[in-house]
Amino acid sequence: MINVGLLGAGRIAGVHATAITRHPDSALIAVSDYIPANAKKLAADFGCAARTTNDIIADPKIDAVLIATSTDTHSDLIEKSVAAGKSILCEKPVDLSLKRARLCQSNVEYAALPIMIGFNRRFDPNFKALKSALDNGEIGKPELLSITSFDPAPPPLAYVKVSGGLFRDMMIHDFDMANFIMRDFPLTIFAHASSIIEPHIGAAGDVDTAVVTLSYADGRIAVIKNSRRAVYGYDQRIELLGSEGMLQAQNMLENTVVKSNTSGVIGAKPKHFFLERYMPAYAAEWNAFVTSVNEGKEVPVSLSDGVTALAMAEAATLSAQSNYPVALKDV
Amino acid sequence: MINVGLLGAGRIAGVHATAITRHPDSALIAVSDYIPANAKKLAADFGCAARTTNDIIADPKIDAVLIATSTDTHSDLIEKSVAAGKSILCEKPVDLSLKRARLCQSNVEYAALPIMIGFNRRFDPNFKALKSALDNGEIGKPELLSITSFDPAPPPLAYVKVSGGLFRDMMIHDFDMANFIMRDFPLTIFAHASSIIEPHIGAAGDVDTAVVTLSYADGRIAVIKNSRRAVYGYDQRIELLGSEGMLQAQNMLENTVVKSNTSGVIGAKPKHFFLERYMPAYAAEWNAFVTSVNEGKEVPVSLSDGVTALAMAEAATLSAQSNYPVALKDV
Amino acid sequence: MINVGLLGAGRIAGVHATAITRHPDSALIAVSDYIPANAKKLAADFGCAARTTNDIIADPKIDAVLIATSTDTHSDLIEKSVAAGKSILCEKPVDLSLKRARLCQSNVEYAALPIMIGFNRRFDPNFKALKSALDNGEIGKPELLSITSFDPAPPPLAYVKVSGGLFRDMMIHDFDMANFIMRDFPLTIFAHASSIIEPHIGAAGDVDTAVVTLSYADGRIAVIKNSRRAVYGYDQRIELLGSEGMLQAQNMLENTVVKSNTSGVIGAKPKHFFLERYMPAYAAEWNAFVTSVNEGKEVPVSLSDGVTALAMAEAATLSAQSNYPVALKDV
Amino acid sequence: MINVGLLGAGRIAGVHATAITRHPDSALIAVSDYIPANAKKLAADFGCAARTTNDIIADPKIDAVLIATSTDTHSDLIEKSVAAGKSILCEKPVDLSLKRARLCQSNVEYAALPIMIGFNRRFDPNFKALKSALDNGEIGKPELLSITSFDPAPPPLAYVKVSGGLFRDMMIHDFDMANFIMRDFPLTIFAHASSIIEPHIGAAGDVDTAVVTLSYADGRIAVIKNSRRAVYGYDQRIELLGSEGMLQAQNMLENTVVKSNTSGVIGAKPKHFFLERYMPAYAAEWNAFVTSVNEGKEVPVSLSDGVTALAMAEAATLSAQSNYPVALKDV
Repeated sequence: MINVGLLGAGRIAGVHATAITRHPDSALIAVSDYIPANAKKLAADFGCAARTTNDIIADPKIDAVLIATSTDTHSDLIEKSVAAGKSILCEKPVDLSLKRARLCQSNVEYAALPIMIGFNRRFDPNFKALKSALDNGEIGKPELLSITSFDPAPPPLAYVKVSGGLFRDMMIHDFDMANFIMRDFPLTIFAHASSIIEPHIGAAGDVDTAVVTLSYADGRIAVIKNSRRAVYGYDQRIELLGSEGMLQAQNMLENTVVKSNTSGVIGAKPKHFFLERYMPAYAAEWNAFVTSVNEGKEVPVSLSDGVTALAMAEAATLSAQSNYPVALKDV
Repeated sequence: MINVGLLGAGRIAGVHATAITRHPDSALIAVSDYIPANAKKLAADFGCAARTTNDIIADPKIDAVLIATSTDTHSDLIEKSVAAGKSILCEKPVDLSLKRARLCQSNVEYAALPIMIGFNRRFDPNFKALKSALDNGEIGKPELLSITSFDPAPPPLAYVKVSGGLFRDMMIHDFDMANFIMRDFPLTIFAHASSIIEPHIGAAGDVDTAVVTLSYADGRIAVIKNSRRAVYGYDQRIELLGSEGMLQAQNMLENTVVKSNTSGVIGAKPKHFFLERYMPAYAAEWNAFVTSVNEGKEVPVSLSDGVTALAMAEAATLSAQSNYPVALKDV
Repeated sequence: MINVGLLGAGRIAGVHATAITRHPDSALIAVSDYIPANAKKLAADFGCAARTTNDIIADPKIDAVLIATSTDTHSDLIEKSVAAGKSILCEKPVDLSLKRARLCQSNVEYAALPIMIGFNRRFDPNFKALKSALDNGEIGKPELLSITSFDPAPPPLAYVKVSGGLFRDMMIHDFDMANFIMRDFPLTIFAHASSIIEPHIGAAGDVDTAVVTLSYADGRIAVIKNSRRAVYGYDQRIELLGSEGMLQAQNMLENTVVKSNTSGVIGAKPKHFFLERYMPAYAAEWNAFVTSVNEGKEVPVSLSDGVTALAMAEAATLSAQSNYPVALKDV
Repeated sequence: MINVGLLGAGRIAGVHATAITRHPDSALIAVSDYIPANAKKLAADFGCAARTTNDIIADPKIDAVLIATSTDTHSDLIEKSVAAGKSILCEKPVDLSLKRARLCQSNVEYAALPIMIGFNRRFDPNFKALKSALDNGEIGKPELLSITSFDPAPPPLAYVKVSGGLFRDMMIHDFDMANFIMRDFPLTIFAHASSIIEPHIGAAGDVDTAVVTLSYADGRIAVIKNSRRAVYGYDQRIELLGSEGMLQAQNMLENTVVKSNTSGVIGAKPKHFFLERYMPAYAAEWNAFVTSVNEGKEVPVSLSDGVTALAMAEAATLSAQSNYPVALKDV
């Protein structure tokens, strides 16, 4: 049984608390939040203690921490938790500062226990099935990867301002997915992006619509499309052309009902947003972490994976600003 | 080159005229109609002569006739055309009277040339592909067949009154399809039917909604569903469960465009009615007839097939009236 | 908080134990089974007590029982539990004997607390969405209902022999679904059935393939298709034609991955069987029961619903044997 | 009746000959080819004369020419045909040399009669339906366009060498489609391309896999993906995200049959290649040309459209070579 301390008590922390509680090999012991009332609320809902972050990290009876605090605290908390001998699952991104993330990586280089980054989409059953089919050689050699990732609606302006921008906040998931599928890092990144959905996003210096091309040393190509607004719901698709076929992971729909009338043949929308779509992925992610901890196995998403995805976001940000391709090694 | 006389100049005759004209091995020589102006119009459109039916049948330069006149004339015209040494493609049904159809069959028993009945759906590329997959053993032994066949809208009352009723006019296509797929005739037929769409259909003694169960000697079962109204278009589907899988022939849609919005994911409707859906089938049907004529091969849909489908319609009509199953051998 | 005793510790009891445990307003207190070791095993897994059935029913601290024992004990346990003042959720079918089920119904007629029958499919999100769309008037007046319900593989012969036959064991779900959707009971039932999948099923006096037609007083028609074997998985679909359109609830697939290669465009199979397909339905069913208990509301599936579905199964059994339609009022 | 001379007798000329012959308002009078035997063969098949190109252009009884010769002759033949007072439908691309195409455009600037370029995909019923839905405002303002265009197999090396390269030969269709849908030309074009399918394509200086990003003045973005090999068939899809929804034009499949077995749910492949997929588009294209000629209306695809698409191909070629975005105005 792994005793877990949860750092952070926001929405995503609640998702993790459910996964921790339902897993037969883990127990949620305590939760902290910079707003103590939030920690108390979550503690009451899940039958655990509300404590301070430092207290949790210092508690020798707690084996692992799940870091679901604001991004700017991730590096610090990873370092402190490593120092306290905890296993760690930290929400993405590692940091908004690539420099800080790399320093963190360097500081915890010799950590004895697992440090895993929460790229939950690797655990989505559909994307896993696509990956398995690829690894089974079902489409031969991959050649051209396309990732579509659209949110149902733009976030509030306040969020946009602290998010680090679309590439670090949103597309970072897709960068990691590309790395997961292609099993290599791109050589160069070209980003074209604009703010055409919400003028206030552009005014805040961010973009809401972006297309990014990744080039690989062996000639393979990947393209990622992001939009902050698909009114029909969370559009999360992957398409991979290979030498012997194509694999597509399509959207999960709200239900399977189809209505035919004089307007056409009408099916349900995609599941609305990440909580609906990726709930099973969060449970599978936690299970993978528990397995790594219990069996002493390498984590499936390492801190290094987290830093690489952040570097790709940095490169894309620079490319979108300069309108030139940026080599990943140059960031 | 097969010289063809077309008997009848209505809507379906125009479809056949196109097929005859476009086929490299057949030429449309003449057309007749009981309304001469209709024959003249079609003749002008297709560059052939407008003549009388008797004249066409008597013309030794005409090799084949396509009978697309009103149903009550089919048996007579088949007999006369056989007597004149013509190859024949006759629209379904053979007759509304099973007795008359059987007499016709008996009268032309020793015809030397092909007599084919126009069950066009056997030539639909989708149903043919389903049949081929079945014959290739792709789903093992067939066990349970379902045919869905809905019209977009009920016909005019005037048509209903002379149609012979839903089973002889509409479901006869599905009876033939069942025979085509199952390669056997049913032992018994149970029909339940009602008039719930249009009161005037019921008032005229006909039904507009029907479910018919066919039982086979070896335990297989088929079920046919008919409705005179599917507002979304012509619903023409087949589904066949076998020991090693299922085959479905789904609807053909008006186009492949899909719109996703806050209402859902909206695709096009099925092709509206038989002219849209089965146009390629009519061309393939004609090609099959031409091949039979030219190569002296058995026709793919015989007069006997036409009479059997009519007998099934008769049995279904009796079953719906009595609310008891009717054995096919008893009609 | 509702304290629950679980009667039975088999596979389906485990499903219910999960639902009870995860629900915030219910607690699993004790479990019993005629094989005590099974009860101990489930009790250990879910952190509750293993006790005898009588002990559980007699315990005043237990508010509700969930009856998941073998069918022949349902009527007795319902009567005993009512006498002990419990709220009840009982698995389907109420009984294999229609007479005994009606006696039970009569015996508990004045029960003060909820008695709900576990027709879980009413709580499937897809079928619920179809029902909501119908109730919202989205397809006008319903006219023709089709239910397809195929198991992935036939049950063991030992199960077949005690199951009560396909109509009472398997199609009873579909009878209830027809009642749920049509909001009326059929006048007559015509069943045609055979054993073509497994000779030993036929030898045991049961059938494995069946088509049943239900006729309604207002002219509506329903047709139910059952097969004990669809090698591609659990095929659970509903299709409802109405005056203004059609609603279909399609299968849930194992994942959304589609592979295109030289063989075609290949999607995932339907979820394999009822545990995979209906897991969310069992949770929703339990939640509905909890709501009825807590709010004193009528249960969504009454004992009367359970008895009616059993009467329909009885009528279908008689019809399949006699090859004549059977009036529901005559059983 | 428009009398038509067909210049070229290759495969695509045969497609056009069928469209010309079947159209009620056009007649195929003569055909030429640089290999006279080819012209004779086509002439025999379609019942027209085989003549020389010059003879056809000089014939005052011929109203229109359809230019389906090799690309390097297009500009010359357009100029000669204009001089001879013909209406013109010319296959794409206008030329391989942007300079020559622009000279041609300048030379025929004051042509009195229609000059149309054969971008047949604008007439595909699916893409037209997508465009109509967009123009009807069904998805609000377009924001992000994706075009997927994969051939089933790479062309022969001999063809690759004279093709002008993937951008001028293949993606030029997609450039025109982007212009058709976006109703504007892009500011800049960024192309990333490689040869990973067939080494001999790379050795010949061409690419076989490409992703191109188009940026628009108002912030909209388009991305085009090309591959010379999708083993499952001709993959021709368009996807357009707008402020109020998304439109997708999906592939047309060979048939609607779906097989479910232990391997999954298997549908038919996309129609194999352009002849299968775009046959209706060629007929609609010809009909549009006939309408323009007969009604003196502007052609739907002008010579200027053809030159612009070629300029985009030129820019993409330069971008792929330099790895920098290229402004359309700079080519």
